[in-house]
Amino acid sequence: MQPAITGTFLDEITHDIPSQNWDDRAWEADFAAMKQAGIDTVILIRAGYKEQATFNSQILQQHIGILPVYTDLVELFLTLAAKYNMTFYFGTYDSGNYWLNGDYQTETDLNKAFCEEFITRYGNHQGFGGWYISHEINTYNDGMMRVYEDLSHHLKQLRDVPILISPYIKGIKQFGQTAISLDKHIKEWESVFARLEGIVDIVAFQDGNVPYQDLPHYLQANQTLASKYRLTSWSNVESFDRDFPFKFPPIDFRKLRYKIEQAEAANIDKLITFEFSHFMSPHSSYPAAQNLYQQYQQWISRR
Amino acid sequence: MQPAITGTFLDEITHDIPSQNWDDRAWEADFAAMKQAGIDTVILIRAGYKEQATFNSQILQQHIGILPVYTDLVELFLTLAAKYNMTFYFGTYDSGNYWLNGDYQTETDLNKAFCEEFITRYGNHQGFGGWYISHEINTYNDGMMRVYEDLSHHLKQLRDVPILISPYIKGIKQFGQTAISLDKHIKEWESVFARLEGIVDIVAFQDGNVPYQDLPHYLQANQTLASKYRLTSWSNVESFDRDFPFKFPPIDFRKLRYKIEQAEAANIDKLITFEFSHFMSPHSSYPAAQNLYQQYQQWISRR
Amino acid sequence: MQPAITGTFLDEITHDIPSQNWDDRAWEADFAAMKQAGIDTVILIRAGYKEQATFNSQILQQHIGILPVYTDLVELFLTLAAKYNMTFYFGTYDSGNYWLNGDYQTETDLNKAFCEEFITRYGNHQGFGGWYISHEINTYNDGMMRVYEDLSHHLKQLRDVPILISPYIKGIKQFGQTAISLDKHIKEWESVFARLEGIVDIVAFQDGNVPYQDLPHYLQANQTLASKYRLTSWSNVESFDRDFPFKFPPIDFRKLRYKIEQAEAANIDKLITFEFSHFMSPHSSYPAAQNLYQQYQQWISRR
Repeated sequence: MQPAITGTFLDEITHDIPSQNWDDRAWEADFAAMKQAGIDTVILIRAGYKEQATFNSQILQQHIGILPVYTDLVELFLTLAAKYNMTFYFGTYDSGNYWLNGDYQTETDLNKAFCEEFITRYGNHQGFGGWYISHEINTYNDGMMRVYEDLSHHLKQLRDVPILISPYIKGIKQFGQTAISLDKHIKEWESVFARLEGIVDIVAFQDGNVPYQDLPHYLQANQTLASKYRLTSWSNVESFDRDFPFKFPPIDFRKLRYKIEQAEAANIDKLITFEFSHFMSPHSSYPAAQNLYQQYQQWISRR
Repeated sequence: MQPAITGTFLDEITHDIPSQNWDDRAWEADFAAMKQAGIDTVILIRAGYKEQATFNSQILQQHIGILPVYTDLVELFLTLAAKYNMTFYFGTYDSGNYWLNGDYQTETDLNKAFCEEFITRYGNHQGFGGWYISHEINTYNDGMMRVYEDLSHHLKQLRDVPILISPYIKGIKQFGQTAISLDKHIKEWESVFARLEGIVDIVAFQDGNVPYQDLPHYLQANQTLASKYRLTSWSNVESFDRDFPFKFPPIDFRKLRYKIEQAEAANIDKLITFEFSHFMSPHSSYPAAQNLYQQYQQWISRR
Repeated sequence: MQPAITGTFLDEITHDIPSQNWDDRAWEADFAAMKQAGIDTVILIRAGYKEQATFNSQILQQHIGILPVYTDLVELFLTLAAKYNMTFYFGTYDSGNYWLNGDYQTETDLNKAFCEEFITRYGNHQGFGGWYISHEINTYNDGMMRVYEDLSHHLKQLRDVPILISPYIKGIKQFGQTAISLDKHIKEWESVFARLEGIVDIVAFQDGNVPYQDLPHYLQANQTLASKYRLTSWSNVESFDRDFPFKFPPIDFRKLRYKIEQAEAANIDKLITFEFSHFMSPHSSYPAAQNLYQQYQQWISRR
C-alpha cells in the first residue's frame, strides 16, 4: 500500500462544517482509522474562532470572551497524535473580525499571546511539530504579509518547527465572474512568495477552487513558484465536493483520485486533505464518506 | 440522572425540516427513547399546515382542501403520549396564508372550528393536556394579539388546559441588519405580555436567534418579563444549529449544553426543544444527532 | 404485490445530486433491491455531462476533453440490467453548454457521433432497449425541436427502440412568479407534441414542479395531449422533495403515495422515478430514503 494522502486537517471549529458530536472515544477511533489510511500529520484547522475555543484559553477569555470549553481538544489531539505517531500542527486563532476589517495588528498581537499560552500549556507534548497559520488569502494583501511576517517570527522563537499555510486560488468555482486568470494568479503569488521566503516553510494550496481541467496547470505553477522561493509545496486535496448546491457533501471518488493523480504528476511533496473525519472516514456521519473511504482504501491497496 | 430537557416538539409537518419517513413502529420506538431521556411533554408543532394535515379534518377539507391523510398522527401521538405517561399539547393549524396577509379573522375562525373538531374527535384521550398556538411572532403585532385573545378564549372554553406559545427573538442570527436590540426586544414584549396576561399561560422563547454571548441577557430579560405578567417561562432550547449554510444540521453538543446551563442559571421553569426526533434522537436520520444523544445522555447521567 | 413504480433513472452524473461513492458491488446490490421493488426499466440520466463521462468515450475525449473514467458505468449498468432482466435506456450527452447557448447543431452533431460510438461499443448488449434524450425543456423551443427531430431520426437508424423524454412543467414550485398557467402549459405542449409525433415515443413529465392540488389536472392534461398525438405517457414520480431549503432530501412517503395514486387515476401507462438509488433505496446514503423504501414496500405489499 502506498498511501496518497498522508495528512489531514482536524476540523472541530469551523464556520461551515456541522459538528459530528464526537466524544473522546469517537476521536480515538478516528485517529486509528487515519493511521490505517496512512495519515502521519494532523493539522488543527484553528484553535479558536470568534468566541469558540478548543482549550480554555485565558488569553481569549480576557480579550474576546469565550464560550465554556468542556473538553480540552488540544490536549486530546496532542495525546492521540503522540499515541499514533503523528505530527500535530497547531492552527492559530481566527477572530473572524480584526483582520477582515483591516486591523491586522490586533489579530497578530492576539495570536502572539495565544500561541505563547499554547506553548506554555502544551509545549512539552511530543506530538507537537508544526505551526499552521490559519488565516487564508487568495491574492497579495499587504496587511496580511505583515501578519505572516510578524507572527511567523514570533512563532519560530516560541518553537522552531515548520510553518504551514493553506491559501486558496481565486478560482471560478468559488468566485465566478470575479475569479482571476492563471497568469494573474501566478503574478499575485510571485509577490506573496517573494515576501514569504524564509518566513513560511510550507504552502498547501487548496485544490477545489478551479475547474478540474485547469487543475494540472495550477498545480504545476504553484510547484514551480514554491520551488523558486524555496518553499515546500504540499497540496490540500479537498475531500468535500464544491460542485453541488449543498455545502458540502463528501467528494465523488473519481474527482478525488483525479486530483491526487494530478498532484503526484506535478511532483507535489505531500498531500493533505480538508478533511478526513467528515468527508472520508469510516466513522463519518455521511454514509457517502464511509463509501469514499472504502473506495480510496481499495484503490491505494491496489496501486 | 437529572434530565435537563423535559419536553419536545413533534415535527411531522413543517416547511423546512425534511421527513424521516417514520411509520408507527418507528414513532413508538422514538417515544420510548424520549422517555428514556426524561421527556414528559410532547407538543405537536402544528396539526396542519397549508394543505397538509395530521388527521383527516373535515373542517380543513371543507375550507382549505387537504391532501389525503394515510395515518392519523394525532391518534398515534395521543396514544403514545398516554402509554409513556406524557402530556400532549395540540398545535393549532397554520394556513401559511391568511394571518401572513393580514386576514387575522379567517385564521382565527378556521382554528376555532378546527380545535372544536379536535376536541370532538380526541377530547377523551387522557394524554391531552395543553394547547399550543403555533403562530409565531417576534415583536408586537396588533392583529396577532387579537388572534391570541380570541382563540385562547375559545380554547379555554373547549378545555381548560394550559396554553403555550413559542415566539422567536428578532435576533441578529436570523435577521442580520434588521435585528432589534435587547432594549427594543424588552419594550416590544412588555407590550405583548401586557396584552397576553391571563390569556396565554406559558411562553417558551426560541433560544437560537441571538449570539451565544447575548443569550444569558435575553433569558434573564424574558424570565423577568414573564414573571411580571404572571406567565410561566419555559425555554425552547433549539437542538438544531443555526450557524451553518445547511438548514439545518443537529447542533454541536457544546452549544446545546451551554444554552441549557444558561437557561438553568436564569431559573427558567422548564426546558423544551425543537426537536428531539430529528436532532437529538438515537433513531434520527442524522448520525450527528445520534451522537448528540449519546453526549447528552452521558452528560445528564453524570451531573 | 402490485408495484407502482417500475422504472428508475440511474444517476451517476448530475449537476445537483451528490455522489454516494458506490463501487461495482454496491451497484449490484442496488439493482437487486430495485428488482425486489418491481423495477423493470433503468434509464441512464445522461451518459456524459460537461467534462464527465460514464465510459471512456473517444468522441467526447476528442471534442470536449473528459476527465479520466476509472469504471465503465455503461458496461456495468448494461450487464446488471441483463442479469436482472431489465430494459436499459441510454441517456444522451449533455454539454451543459452548446444547446443552452443556442448552438443546437453542435449539440446534435456531438450526440450523433456519441450515440454511434455507444452502439459500436455496447450495441450487442441484450439489456439495451431504449434511448433517452436527456435535454429537458418546459415549453416550446424551436431550436430544441430541431435537436429532437434530427437526433431521433439518427437514433432510430442506429437502433429502432423507443425514444423517451422527461420534460418538466414550468410550475410555481420551481419558477415562482415566472411559472405558467395550466392553460398556457397545454398550449405550449400542443405545439411541442405536434412537432414530436412520430419522432419521440414516450413522454414522462416530471411531477414535482406544481402544487400537489394542481397535479391531477396536469396529469390529466398531459395524458390527454399525449394520447392525441399518439405518444405513450409515463409519469416521472420524483422521489426527492422540492419543498425544503436543502436540495434535496428524500420525499415524504405521503407525498410520494399521493403522486402515485394521482398518476394511476389519470391512467398513466407507466411510472418511473428520479431516482431510486439516492432517494428510495434500502442502500441509500440517506436514512430517510431507507425508511421511505420500507414504507413504500409495506404499502405495495398490502394493496
